[in-house]
Amino acid sequence: MPSYDLSHPIADGMPVYPGDPPVGVETLASIGTDGYHQTALRIDTHTGTHIDAPAHMIDDGRSLSAFPLETFRFAGQHVDCTGFKPRAEIGLEKLTSGIDGDLSEALDLLVVETGWDDYWETDRYFEHPFLSTDAAKWVADRGLHLGIDTPNVDPTPTANAADDEPAGYPVHRHLLGAGRLLVENLRGLSRLAGRFELQAYPLSIQGGDGAPVRAVAVVEA
Amino acid sequence: MPSYDLSHPIADGMPVYPGDPPVGVETLASIGTDGYHQTALRIDTHTGTHIDAPAHMIDDGRSLSAFPLETFRFAGQHVDCTGFKPRAEIGLEKLTSGIDGDLSEALDLLVVETGWDDYWETDRYFEHPFLSTDAAKWVADRGLHLGIDTPNVDPTPTANAADDEPAGYPVHRHLLGAGRLLVENLRGLSRLAGRFELQAYPLSIQGGDGAPVRAVAVVEA
Repeated sequence: MPSYDLSHPIADGMPVYPGDPPVGVETLASIGTDGYHQTALRIDTHTGTHIDAPAHMIDDGRSLSAFPLETFRFAGQHVDCTGFKPRAEIGLEKLTSGIDGDLSEALDLLVVETGWDDYWETDRYFEHPFLSTDAAKWVADRGLHLGIDTPNVDPTPTANAADDEPAGYPVHRHLLGAGRLLVENLRGLSRLAGRFELQAYPLSIQGGDGAPVRAVAVVEA
Repeated sequence: MPSYDLSHPIADGMPVYPGDPPVGVETLASIGTDGYHQTALRIDTHTGTHIDAPAHMIDDGRSLSAFPLETFRFAGQHVDCTGFKPRAEIGLEKLTSGIDGDLSEALDLLVVETGWDDYWETDRYFEHPFLSTDAAKWVADRGLHLGIDTPNVDPTPTANAADDEPAGYPVHRHLLGAGRLLVENLRGLSRLAGRFELQAYPLSIQGGDGAPVRAVAVVEA
């Protein structure tokens, strides 16, 4: 079955969410000097392509380790939300009209393609579209998890955060508060259509507020 | 289908290979103070349950990114090599007699259970059994990858490394030199028997000499 890598590589100085510490990827040992190659990583639980657990924002929210392993083999549905302008809101009607499939079939996860991964490593990457609160509520009410090819399902603060509306991460709070998972910083979603399986097992990390993942789409031939 | 987590959790101060830098898992932000929880990680490409690529020890060896993604859904075969003494050599005959399955069926990976994960977080964990050179050559000649529940397929050096024989990581060199992958620090292999699928996608890391993984066994019901 064809598989697609939906993950951004973890690299020295890669884009991070505004205010987060920089990512470090540094050679610890090399074959010429030491006889083996090894690489040190300075990352965090929300580096690059990653999963947010409810414990990321919700008091007493579930950590990743509280989910059965099978959760991370998601029955996924592609949603076309391309064509939005920078910092535009993706409303409920646009979200549902982007779904080219039957929601009555067993489903775990909506994977929203905005196309914004094209701007990875540019300032525009952080001027991404975001979901409306009613769209988030609709997803949560259906018991679905949500993935997206932007760094955030809510608007990302600018240098002048007072410009940003709505404040307070309402999409995070609706979905994580309903025990749902978020997968952020996906890439390459234009290769998908309809249904697929997303295999995205989080690293097992003490605390479990989130984890970087290798996100792999497995498509029926 | 039942799934088993074969990974050790990544935790502050967890066991590392002798001489490697300590692992750091530290709270970066907490809900009470910051409104969200986030955790900083100081790890390396061979922390905890991880995959070694040929590039770990072989000049111009393949990096993890040079393998097709499908490689990391391994057709696996459990091998019972329990009952060995500390620092004992697992020879070819013991390896092959531990296989309770038909090697003529499509196979990617042997997963060797020594039971040594019981000693995780004790000094004895590093006094593990190791493979003989002829066993390694046999695995490489069959084009198989190798997984094990010890920190090393070769003997791990003691404080007085001159005590250790054989020197020079011959098992690593045979297998990585033949373009094979190694999965080390697996755990909980006693739950397996015969065939299963090991899903162990490495984090996508610049350089690609190795990567930590969430290793998941998927067993036919």
